[in-house]
Amino acid sequence: MTSDPRHQVLVASNRGPVSFAFAAGGSLTGHRGGGGMVSGLTSGLAARAAEGRSDSPAVWVCAALSEADRVAARQGLVIAGEGPGDVPVLMLDIPPATFEAAYNGIANSVLWFVHHLLYDTPNQPLFGARFRADWAAYLAYNEAFAAALADQGSTGARVLIQDYHLALAPRLLRHRRPDARIAHFSHTPWAPPAYFRMLPDDVAAAILDGMLGADHLGFLAGRWADAFLDCCAEVLGAHVDRARRCVTHRGRATEVAVHPLGVDAQALRARASADDVRANAATLTAATGDRQLIVRVDRTELSKNIVRGLAAYRELLATRPQWQGRVVHVAFAYPSRSAIRSTGPTPTRLSRPRPRSTRSSARRTGSR
Amino acid sequence: MTSDPRHQVLVASNRGPVSFAFAAGGSLTGHRGGGGMVSGLTSGLAARAAEGRSDSPAVWVCAALSEADRVAARQGLVIAGEGPGDVPVLMLDIPPATFEAAYNGIANSVLWFVHHLLYDTPNQPLFGARFRADWAAYLAYNEAFAAALADQGSTGARVLIQDYHLALAPRLLRHRRPDARIAHFSHTPWAPPAYFRMLPDDVAAAILDGMLGADHLGFLAGRWADAFLDCCAEVLGAHVDRARRCVTHRGRATEVAVHPLGVDAQALRARASADDVRANAATLTAATGDRQLIVRVDRTELSKNIVRGLAAYRELLATRPQWQGRVVHVAFAYPSRSAIRSTGPTPTRLSRPRPRSTRSSARRTGSR
Repeated sequence: MTSDPRHQVLVASNRGPVSFAFAAGGSLTGHRGGGGMVSGLTSGLAARAAEGRSDSPAVWVCAALSEADRVAARQGLVIAGEGPGDVPVLMLDIPPATFEAAYNGIANSVLWFVHHLLYDTPNQPLFGARFRADWAAYLAYNEAFAAALADQGSTGARVLIQDYHLALAPRLLRHRRPDARIAHFSHTPWAPPAYFRMLPDDVAAAILDGMLGADHLGFLAGRWADAFLDCCAEVLGAHVDRARRCVTHRGRATEVAVHPLGVDAQALRARASADDVRANAATLTAATGDRQLIVRVDRTELSKNIVRGLAAYRELLATRPQWQGRVVHVAFAYPSRSAIRSTGPTPTRLSRPRPRSTRSSARRTGSR
Repeated sequence: MTSDPRHQVLVASNRGPVSFAFAAGGSLTGHRGGGGMVSGLTSGLAARAAEGRSDSPAVWVCAALSEADRVAARQGLVIAGEGPGDVPVLMLDIPPATFEAAYNGIANSVLWFVHHLLYDTPNQPLFGARFRADWAAYLAYNEAFAAALADQGSTGARVLIQDYHLALAPRLLRHRRPDARIAHFSHTPWAPPAYFRMLPDDVAAAILDGMLGADHLGFLAGRWADAFLDCCAEVLGAHVDRARRCVTHRGRATEVAVHPLGVDAQALRARASADDVRANAATLTAATGDRQLIVRVDRTELSKNIVRGLAAYRELLATRPQWQGRVVHVAFAYPSRSAIRSTGPTPTRLSRPRPRSTRSSARRTGSR
């Protein structure tokens, strides 16, 4: 992507940089999100806004995730807060059943599990009629994003599409807006062909072809970028230049690149010396005394391998009994950010990926 | 491998070409096996014996799998039957606990699941103290084969080692007998690095290094041969020539090749017109009448995807109700050959791969 400031920048992601809640009296209050993707992109957009001019303002397109978000969505472009990077947000009021089927049925129950190699493969997934209905919803969800991006973008707009929820959007946007410069970034791993091919042939091909509607595809690590290239070669039969990381398909070239996202070391160091952190550290020290401390901090997600971490601690105590009483294991396992931040009841469809069996039972009491 | 008939040929496999049972009165009776590997290799050995001469006779080294096998093992080389290809067999009387840990604990509960991508990865496998004990047994089991092969082989012997049970044997034999020409053949898939690397680093490296003790490695399909090459490059850092399918490691080159194993079409055609087959076909036709017939035949193994096959038939009837009453699904799902052929009670340790949880319960009542 060029950084030429004359071009408008659009961002698309399932979860946006702001969420709404109903305040007392029924009015809407907005809350800025603080995840890695949101803070990284908003600071980038703020820097861009500060340094140059654009004929059209940046817009962040996301899905409405709650009833309050849906009310906000009906107001058109919304801005929460007044800080730098508080870009106008367009929330999409996608029908709840469509959102549920696309987000949980496909993105989190299928694509997330495939890319993390986390399926209990003899039993899951099943690609029956229900999967096909969910897949149709996933297409509709991606089309809603593509239509909004095509509508919001000025000529030659730069569009940054985020993650596995929106794998089809680059191609769908390309159809509508051949002038757009489209990038897609995967915040997850990418499965090798031997695993990716468990998807039905047409679905596997549609996902790869959807991604290849972009000019530029970003991955967090080289092995995931290379796995994507392998899938393009083996599933699509696309021409793949592995040395240059470039895929040619349907007459267009897409470059594939690695963009590691590190932590903000400076901010973390500053945070570590803040008063509340020091106070909590003192509490922890008082509780553990002169015992050694093993600390882990994870979201409660299957990909965090929490069970094996606890099993490893059990094995330490069993096989090195000299450590019993001399070591403390503190495991912070916390729910996803959305569940913590939500000021109202958290709908189950906002939770992080979980196996289909859990989702099935959630669905039976849900809106479908 | 050269086919020069002057060199002795040794075969090594977990299950040999013959099994023994106790006849009335306690004497031993031998039964020839008839699996694809056994019939393919025995006919090859018979052809070789017919066409040339060898200074030393061929020997097949395998594990004793039953109490009757163990009695036979104590007699040294044994020959069952008098047909061509009834090569002398050396059964190894590996201690039952060692065999159980190596065969079920490692080969079938870990390596088979890894290579078939069939783990419920958030929960299995666990690489704790019990795994380490099993791994030590797997090494001892492979060492027993390597020692027997080194002992049986004349100078320059050609050694054909079979499958994932014996991944370490090529290297262990190489240490003992640098003069041997060693081939190893994988009758299973091979996992891509992203999945193979779930093994502990030292175990993953030992398996690859063990295989690379061979001069020649055979796989059933190109993508599995290539997955092995990828693992050698990524896990071992070995020099891999993908175009020539050659790995150079520890100063030696190992060639990797694809040897598809087809069925014996001529024998199958002849079998199809045999009287008993015709009689069974007539019974099936009488039972199904003019309804369409969907037939599947599988061993009851997770890799056969039996559950999804039944789910697909259910979906056919649900989504195409016009087929109800007009189609019959006959699913032959049978236990492994060993269980069918065994004339005595079938020990659980002889069964086909199954998940570790099943194995755990079997073990609690077992010999360990």
